[in-house]
Amino acid sequence: MTSTPSRRGPWCGAARVPASDLSTLAAVPETLPRPDQPDAPEGARRIGVVGAGQLARMMLGPAIELGLDVEVLATDRAESAAAVAARVRLGRHDDAAAVRGLAEGVDALTFDHEHVPTAILEGIAGEGLAAVRPGPGALVHAQDKLVMRERLTELGHPCPRWWRIDSAAALEDALAEAGGRLVVKTPRGGYDAHGVRIVSEAAQVTDWLEAHGELLAEELVPFTRELSAQVARRPGGEAVAYPVVQSLQKDGVCYEVVAPAPGLDDTGQHRIQALALEIAEDLDVTGMLAVELFETADGRVLVNELAMRPHNTGHWSMDGAVTGQFEQHLRAVADLPLGATTPLAPAAVMVNLLGGSAEDLAPGTAAALAEDPSLKVHLYGKSVRPGRKIGHLTLLGDDAENLLARAHRAERLIIDGPGAQDTALGTASGAEPTAPTSEGDPR
Amino acid sequence: MTSTPSRRGPWCGAARVPASDLSTLAAVPETLPRPDQPDAPEGARRIGVVGAGQLARMMLGPAIELGLDVEVLATDRAESAAAVAARVRLGRHDDAAAVRGLAEGVDALTFDHEHVPTAILEGIAGEGLAAVRPGPGALVHAQDKLVMRERLTELGHPCPRWWRIDSAAALEDALAEAGGRLVVKTPRGGYDAHGVRIVSEAAQVTDWLEAHGELLAEELVPFTRELSAQVARRPGGEAVAYPVVQSLQKDGVCYEVVAPAPGLDDTGQHRIQALALEIAEDLDVTGMLAVELFETADGRVLVNELAMRPHNTGHWSMDGAVTGQFEQHLRAVADLPLGATTPLAPAAVMVNLLGGSAEDLAPGTAAALAEDPSLKVHLYGKSVRPGRKIGHLTLLGDDAENLLARAHRAERLIIDGPGAQDTALGTASGAEPTAPTSEGDPR
Repeated sequence: MTSTPSRRGPWCGAARVPASDLSTLAAVPETLPRPDQPDAPEGARRIGVVGAGQLARMMLGPAIELGLDVEVLATDRAESAAAVAARVRLGRHDDAAAVRGLAEGVDALTFDHEHVPTAILEGIAGEGLAAVRPGPGALVHAQDKLVMRERLTELGHPCPRWWRIDSAAALEDALAEAGGRLVVKTPRGGYDAHGVRIVSEAAQVTDWLEAHGELLAEELVPFTRELSAQVARRPGGEAVAYPVVQSLQKDGVCYEVVAPAPGLDDTGQHRIQALALEIAEDLDVTGMLAVELFETADGRVLVNELAMRPHNTGHWSMDGAVTGQFEQHLRAVADLPLGATTPLAPAAVMVNLLGGSAEDLAPGTAAALAEDPSLKVHLYGKSVRPGRKIGHLTLLGDDAENLLARAHRAERLIIDGPGAQDTALGTASGAEPTAPTSEGDPR
Repeated sequence: MTSTPSRRGPWCGAARVPASDLSTLAAVPETLPRPDQPDAPEGARRIGVVGAGQLARMMLGPAIELGLDVEVLATDRAESAAAVAARVRLGRHDDAAAVRGLAEGVDALTFDHEHVPTAILEGIAGEGLAAVRPGPGALVHAQDKLVMRERLTELGHPCPRWWRIDSAAALEDALAEAGGRLVVKTPRGGYDAHGVRIVSEAAQVTDWLEAHGELLAEELVPFTRELSAQVARRPGGEAVAYPVVQSLQKDGVCYEVVAPAPGLDDTGQHRIQALALEIAEDLDVTGMLAVELFETADGRVLVNELAMRPHNTGHWSMDGAVTGQFEQHLRAVADLPLGATTPLAPAAVMVNLLGGSAEDLAPGTAAALAEDPSLKVHLYGKSVRPGRKIGHLTLLGDDAENLLARAHRAERLIIDGPGAQDTALGTASGAEPTAPTSEGDPR
């Protein structure tokens, strides 16, 4: 298959899942082949993390237990991970000297986000300053949405209809083809709802065309729900898959996750796990890969976004699986054997804490913990701003609906404070999906 | 009941467990009453930990997730917790200025070990520099074995026969009463097998009598096995109990734990949980309390040791319970509501990594992780010395015997290296109990 850029990508109707992969996965559903003889590689013991948000923060606990030495690159000592890490280097992720300085002191470099310029990483990898995991050739697919769409389309993986847009005229053509409305995205730099617009005329993205030169346009997929598949892959190719989860966005931000995805049978689970494992292999990913998906009414899935790091839709695994995604990412990045992804309960739910009316989370947190002794609270040490991700909750049990109701009650207590409890209960039963433009960045 | 010191304590034949406590515990086996209306206290957000061993280290991950700010007092930056903590203060645990300096910057003070002089803590608590949790009046029972024996005896809790020894003549008398052999312990400063001797004549402890003035002598209990009961208690009295576990010592060091204790039925579990909860209440403990017990052939239990902090026999809970003991200890110390102690699997095992022939743990760790994807490895970042506690392993599953065999295989791989694998297998089926003088300090 050639890599000739196409202005318009084909619409790919079904997941490409070879029957041979399916049969392997049916027998060993969560793991690609492991070597019979462990080769006991030493692995990378010093890990540099570019960025110091909550994802870097949540790597710290597992790193301590595994005996891995983590240094984070932060722009400010008050950042989520920088405030609690033993080793902090100050510098920007797009400053070559800062990133190279971090690389020089560690064995492997990994990321809290995907915004490090490719050229910096290529230099580090090329000179052998540190192993870059995921490597720049893989990471670019999580950095540049046009590169991602083009590559997945070449590989035959299922995508929404998409168009490469380099002019207002091209966008008008695409709008006409698509029926008058499209999702337009900046190729780089977006996260959550940033860098995404639903447009009906080209004038709505004139500024972006000037700033970016090229944009990605995608059809509005009439999805029934969003799913997410997390896998981890080690440098040598060993890979494991987590149960596929259902995710719900709120204003373009991940809000609620149920693991495993309700109503998805074993065949569906294995088919989507196989897709995510194939993408990890095809793109040569090292570390965690999250494949966010749209599920359509006729049971197909389309790839929405990729992230090559621990992802908001995998937070449930910190408390709900034998190996949490942060430990798993570190194991992959350190080239240690991967861990079991087995869930610890029939159902797990995760609900994000998005900044509400309470500036001080302590009273609500204490109230929520008092009400529900099984509640797991994860706070990110960030100042509260409306809608900002400031933490998350998980609960394990048998019945996802019951867990969600409890988690949302705790959520309201924490973000609005115990005083707002009565008025908040009306909204505690879960948010509705907002727009089909959901973004995957968990930051 | 008076507190007149007695040279010889009575032998207490049965646990004092009021029927009313048993019925409460049968209904709600793991929790003392919670307030109906949570009072949402703010809690202590800055926690100072005196000591920087592995127990302080393992508090760091849960503290990060709970948003608690931990500072450790270390004697050296290379200590287990000091190497990975964001906030480290250098100073000795018995230097009043150092401990007071730590206290001044935090809301609550807690401990990695029990060796802080009582007078220092009384000063800090008395002046209100910081909340001391557990308080000095409780902690003394884990610091001074004579105080512990006297108090437990007064309270009617089951103890081995014991004697307060202040002279060679007193010891000879006790030896004659006891049949010629006794366990003699220094009241303070012991840990693991340190500070414990089995003696048959007074001359064997002449040095200790000179150094300590008073010693504790105890009968050699013909126990069938050792059990351990962990509970947590919050300042206001809320308390929770973990499942009672079986522990096995090796050369006086905790080596292997099975949770819950095999063959202990619900009645036995609840009786022992009630005993530990009563002791926590009687002594006004804040934080985790470990009650190490001897089980005798006729089904009685006798209190061996107390520890008022997370304990080696509770490490399984990090991976095996909804709320691990390190998180639980922090919640109690921060005066946050306590968490559920529910196990995540029918059985959990913990095996300590005690320094073996491998100086570099990395090759064996990678081999062990490759063999057993469900294995949880916790490394303490300590240099390897023979017999030194350098980490621990846990495994969850259905069958404790199977889990133990797997954990011991992983243990040998890690401590002796993958090259020693074949020769080590012969010893991988578990150590035999060594002596009835087992000590409880997990350091």
